[in-house]
Amino acid sequence: MITQTTLDEFLEALASSAPTPGGGSAAAVIGAMGAGLISMVCNVTLGKKGLEAAAADMREICTESEKLRIRLTAMIAEDIAAFDGLMKAYRLPKASDADKAQRSAAIQESLTGATKIPLECARTCAQVIGISRRAAELGYAGVISDAGVGVLAAQTALRSAGLNVQINAPLLQDREFAAAALSELEQLVESGGRESEAVFALVRTRLG
Amino acid sequence: MITQTTLDEFLEALASSAPTPGGGSAAAVIGAMGAGLISMVCNVTLGKKGLEAAAADMREICTESEKLRIRLTAMIAEDIAAFDGLMKAYRLPKASDADKAQRSAAIQESLTGATKIPLECARTCAQVIGISRRAAELGYAGVISDAGVGVLAAQTALRSAGLNVQINAPLLQDREFAAAALSELEQLVESGGRESEAVFALVRTRLG
Repeated sequence: MITQTTLDEFLEALASSAPTPGGGSAAAVIGAMGAGLISMVCNVTLGKKGLEAAAADMREICTESEKLRIRLTAMIAEDIAAFDGLMKAYRLPKASDADKAQRSAAIQESLTGATKIPLECARTCAQVIGISRRAAELGYAGVISDAGVGVLAAQTALRSAGLNVQINAPLLQDREFAAAALSELEQLVESGGRESEAVFALVRTRLG
Repeated sequence: MITQTTLDEFLEALASSAPTPGGGSAAAVIGAMGAGLISMVCNVTLGKKGLEAAAADMREICTESEKLRIRLTAMIAEDIAAFDGLMKAYRLPKASDADKAQRSAAIQESLTGATKIPLECARTCAQVIGISRRAAELGYAGVISDAGVGVLAAQTALRSAGLNVQINAPLLQDREFAAAALSELEQLVESGGRESEAVFALVRTRLG
């Protein structure tokens, strides 16, 4: 399992010529780091004297950020499986017409997964951005920069996952699904970008 | 050693209330991922028929991106040590005047390191952004989105490391060094932001 490799091994594998892990799984890792940093802000704030009033919010945000972190962590392997499945489909025989039909169907099925998974990753990162505002507003000042790093990580993960939607969706025969995926993605990138920059600006303001 | 922990363990530790790893080491991880993805683009392109003309460039870029990846990977632990050192200095006794003087000197020394390390991280990420343009221009089309993820990761790592410079530099008694650090950082964030968005736009164009 990819998440059982060490950081050193993961970074080596990313840099190698092996097709996976690549940008898609990197996006999921960065998104999970973003969610994790929001959890950290909550966990540290929960232990601080004088910030008891924020405890209920912090517990609520942390429950959510931990769900998102676990979801994004699972997507690291899901992205690799989707990409490997797609490569396998492309390598199917294409000698006869029956071969060709089978190969094309397998490619379309794999492409659907290889569009849905990064779209779900982008959606999940948008949720990380969504909860980061309250963490940045109410979190302990000593860890507020971690909320800033978390929201930037979520933004980069969203845009990165988005690239795979933009690569795979246009190759889908199901034009309706493809158009819906691209339109949803565009909206996620646009609103996620705007919201994450607003949260980052808030963090900068709180840092003084 | 932090880079010998598994991805799962690292993400858990990031999310916990433990002060390290936090945003600073997350920045170094994300920067190392960015550099690693640029290496991947080069390594994949080097094996492609029809792209022999790009080989010399790819080898040159990869030598550089691997140096930067290894440097950023080392910074994960360096950032943790700098932060832990600073926390230790703040906890020194402050009963007598001699205690106070010793504590203040220790804090200033730690703050200097806790400014220099993220500044060096930001500089190194700017170098990743700098080499990503050629990788995005000349790399094999099938991995060009990885160059896009790489350059966004480097940008987010640069801005994230920058937060720690902005937190620590204002606390330094050496105003000349603090001003130089803040001014260099501002320039790095500005030019790195502009350049990385230009490379990302190029990637989007090459994806069609």
